Amino acid sequence: MRSHCGFHIAETNADEGAKYFFRMPDGRELPDPASRFQPEGVHGPSAVLDTKQFVWTDTEFRGHALGDLVMYELHVGTFTPEGTFDAATARLGDLADLGITAVEVMPVAQFPGTRNWGYDGVFPFTVQNSYGGPTGFQRFVDAAHVKGMSVILDVVYNHLGPEGNYFGQFGPFFTGRYATPWGEAINFDDAESDPVRQFFIQNALYWLTDFHVDALRLDAVHGIFDFSAHHFLAELKEKVADRSAALGRKLHLIAESNLNDSRVLRSPEQGGYGLDAQWSDDFHHALHALLTRETNGYYADFGSVEDLAAALRDGWRFVGQYSVFRKRRHGNCPTGIATDRFVVFSQNHDQVGNRAAGDRLSNLVDYDGLKLAAGVTLLSPFLPLIFMGEEYGETHPFQYFTSHSDPDLAAAVRKGRREEFADFAWQGEVPDPQAVATFERSVLDWSRRNLLPHRALRDFYRTLLSIRKRFRLAGSRPRVQCDEKLRILTLEYPTPELFVFFNFGESRIVPCPRAYAKGNVVIQSNDPRWPRSGPGSAREEAREPSECEVRLDRSSFVAFTRVKPLAR
Amino acid sequence: MRSHCGFHIAETNADEGAKYFFRMPDGRELPDPASRFQPEGVHGPSAVLDTKQFVWTDTEFRGHALGDLVMYELHVGTFTPEGTFDAATARLGDLADLGITAVEVMPVAQFPGTRNWGYDGVFPFTVQNSYGGPTGFQRFVDAAHVKGMSVILDVVYNHLGPEGNYFGQFGPFFTGRYATPWGEAINFDDAESDPVRQFFIQNALYWLTDFHVDALRLDAVHGIFDFSAHHFLAELKEKVADRSAALGRKLHLIAESNLNDSRVLRSPEQGGYGLDAQWSDDFHHALHALLTRETNGYYADFGSVEDLAAALRDGWRFVGQYSVFRKRRHGNCPTGIATDRFVVFSQNHDQVGNRAAGDRLSNLVDYDGLKLAAGVTLLSPFLPLIFMGEEYGETHPFQYFTSHSDPDLAAAVRKGRREEFADFAWQGEVPDPQAVATFERSVLDWSRRNLLPHRALRDFYRTLLSIRKRFRLAGSRPRVQCDEKLRILTLEYPTPELFVFFNFGESRIVPCPRAYAKGNVVIQSNDPRWPRSGPGSAREEAREPSECEVRLDRSSFVAFTRVKPLAR
Repeated sequence: MRSHCGFHIAETNADEGAKYFFRMPDGRELPDPASRFQPEGVHGPSAVLDTKQFVWTDTEFRGHALGDLVMYELHVGTFTPEGTFDAATARLGDLADLGITAVEVMPVAQFPGTRNWGYDGVFPFTVQNSYGGPTGFQRFVDAAHVKGMSVILDVVYNHLGPEGNYFGQFGPFFTGRYATPWGEAINFDDAESDPVRQFFIQNALYWLTDFHVDALRLDAVHGIFDFSAHHFLAELKEKVADRSAALGRKLHLIAESNLNDSRVLRSPEQGGYGLDAQWSDDFHHALHALLTRETNGYYADFGSVEDLAAALRDGWRFVGQYSVFRKRRHGNCPTGIATDRFVVFSQNHDQVGNRAAGDRLSNLVDYDGLKLAAGVTLLSPFLPLIFMGEEYGETHPFQYFTSHSDPDLAAAVRKGRREEFADFAWQGEVPDPQAVATFERSVLDWSRRNLLPHRALRDFYRTLLSIRKRFRLAGSRPRVQCDEKLRILTLEYPTPELFVFFNFGESRIVPCPRAYAKGNVVIQSNDPRWPRSGPGSAREEAREPSECEVRLDRSSFVAFTRVKPLAR
Repeated sequence: MRSHCGFHIAETNADEGAKYFFRMPDGRELPDPASRFQPEGVHGPSAVLDTKQFVWTDTEFRGHALGDLVMYELHVGTFTPEGTFDAATARLGDLADLGITAVEVMPVAQFPGTRNWGYDGVFPFTVQNSYGGPTGFQRFVDAAHVKGMSVILDVVYNHLGPEGNYFGQFGPFFTGRYATPWGEAINFDDAESDPVRQFFIQNALYWLTDFHVDALRLDAVHGIFDFSAHHFLAELKEKVADRSAALGRKLHLIAESNLNDSRVLRSPEQGGYGLDAQWSDDFHHALHALLTRETNGYYADFGSVEDLAAALRDGWRFVGQYSVFRKRRHGNCPTGIATDRFVVFSQNHDQVGNRAAGDRLSNLVDYDGLKLAAGVTLLSPFLPLIFMGEEYGETHPFQYFTSHSDPDLAAAVRKGRREEFADFAWQGEVPDPQAVATFERSVLDWSRRNLLPHRALRDFYRTLLSIRKRFRLAGSRPRVQCDEKLRILTLEYPTPELFVFFNFGESRIVPCPRAYAKGNVVIQSNDPRWPRSGPGSAREEAREPSECEVRLDRSSFVAFTRVKPLAR
């Protein structure tokens, strides 16, 4: 990368599988930052691998349109007891049956040890050896495509992991201009940044081309600091669009961003980066705070029905208002941006795993609450994402786990984790990230899936996804209304007509447009097919609803299609 | 600013002129960060001052349209021997006579001691006591307006000076997120940034309202780090536009930016900040490198006629190409942005003063070179800025001077300055910034102005400015062509028609469109009215130019109006 770096490739025709190090000017031997495979982990030699040798059988598959994406986020290591791509492949049929169209894989770049979420990866062009390595991932993508499913890969361009990180030895990968939670920022705009940008752009194209990946989820783009006149994300999008055209496949870039900045999504003509979609944490926080009434951390900014209604209207809640959590005004308004360019979820790896005990929503709200969360998310006009296990109400936690081999680092991570939750006055024990048990506790327990009420919940998700498809909700612009006092929220979709009535309050008879109240019920969350949590409510009303009312149990929802008004 | 800061104003009805400190929780007494006047300097008490009491006589004056600005940058301390606003006021008539329409005043916020460029100011709402304080500045602005001249004030929102900087004691003015050349960045996007932004927005409105300032020159906006969804500069522009409408006066924001990012100028609809104009350092560097053949520092990126032609076409030279100086690609293309939104200059305080010896162009090129530099700048379609003394070829340097009272800081500045030029292998002595002689050396010597060739040069500038006005060059889009081998550059303005032929090479007979070659000469830089530097050139051609040629001395230019082609 730097011409004075002084190393060169002596072996130009190395055998497949041959292992190598780079010998540095000071005599040290280091693995290749652009290594294709690290068969012996982050400190071991790199291995020669020609990723173009894989024999693909997915020639029919050209990807999904953005609006057709229904995402399922999984962590390879804990999705199955085996923790490999091959084991995950065996479960793809089940996901397809559920209505999933895109499997989103948490980061796969080689990390220290065998237990890690993936955000400590240090060889961006590798696939974790213990997951099955690059060919394991290729087999997985091929199998998904044959089943008609897209694969989204989570890639981390805002930092590199703390252990086995030799990047600074090879070139100007970092800059002291910006401070990030992970230390020095990756150099996207300082001197000699061009090849660093190229490195990550080539990385994106590598996955999309050699691994047939259909979309990239860009981790925390707010950690990509680029003040240059050509933002890295804009350049990345240009290059991916070119590649999409060249390959004749639909390719998408989906950002995780906490900026609430519509620039991420807007077109270059509007001064934007033109990414295809971005996550809406505001939607999650609004929904979570409403369901759990939690008020700590970022939930301090949420809690009202109107917060959720605002997120449903605009894509996110903060469009310039003061945020108590951030202690400043936050966001701008994504006016005019299509609703199917926001990814929403009631849970994801961060929102679950970044809790002290990694407890899922299934540990926090009752069964009706889980159904309500699913209803708002899957019957929204946005792109839904389901976190592995959520669909059957998995109760195993998803905890923060690592397997660093550097004892100082391991101790620091352990300590940091404990301190993080000390701030939040967390009373319980914080699991030790380095303990094997922490990892094992986080593995899905699919045996549960066939037991009631888990089986019923999965069926409920399946039904919601089929309704979502039938009514073509993605990209629509429903009318969103709410009543803070009654804690009800309604979505009114124009064509095809669908009216959804969510009750976050206590059971009661609530006003409802006559046309809907007398309409055809499409789904009712308290239908006996899906067991209820317990008695409806202490405040049950004895009288029958009038023509302009509807009865809604607590924590339930109902969706109607509209009947034409009677002629007068 | 922070509610736990714990101080409050006990005296709400203090007398005009009353001096005060704030007593901090720890008992220390500090001046007011929003002080209106520091009569005893940066460490002394603040003084109560009602800036609304000034009696204005400029009621007729409503400001200039952007395209009518012809700027004259002056440093109050060295513009006159007295170094005060009152002394500067006495020279306004002379500037008006020259054709100046806007006086641009280098920063006036109170700085340590009496000698400083102004970028070490620490009380953004004050006017340097030794310049005459706030009322001195008000008298100056009033007098300028009465003479029909706008006043532009240079304001510094990217850092605060190193001495007398008590801001950190009062609130979250700084953030550790970004590293700047001046240390921690001002907090425009971190927690509790709203009141910090407000502080600077109120500052801008204060000058525009209470001091009748017509435009602000925003120092180094590339040092304003704001990753929020609503950029500080966009917010500032909105507030200034509102104030402009409320006051019924034309107000402008002009940025100094080294980003070459058209976002600074583009409209909010295009994702921009919507500032009115910005400086083009590229134009300066291209012109300077062409005239001096210097290649050190940022001049490494320039030197060809095409570099200058590119800056004349687009507004700046780097629109995405690799910059050797920056070691990365640089800039984007300001396509479609009107030419009168770029400020150009052949000299300014930085380009002169940041040289080791502070030598002006008059010390670097001959008399013909000075005229050529003036011609390119003043006959460009951009907004020209003249650095004080440039118009008569002042030969006094403009050196870097300070008068810090903190001895450690003084020593550090002295050392830093010496080291800065050690990097550039500067052979000469670096003047001591703290020495009084360094300041005194930098004071203009107006007596020179009445001597030939200085007087003639001033007359030349005056003539160019009148041509510029007559041909309404500002905002036009001339056709720019150049010949690298001959080192010639031409500007062809459509309406009113004007053809300008610049010769950066040796004297020769050069091809020229017949219509122009036979046209009416508007100005010729080697006219006997303005003495020549010496013999024309060793390569003088004996023959007469043909109908499609023109004779141009070395380092000269000629401007023609076009004659209609003869009917054939």
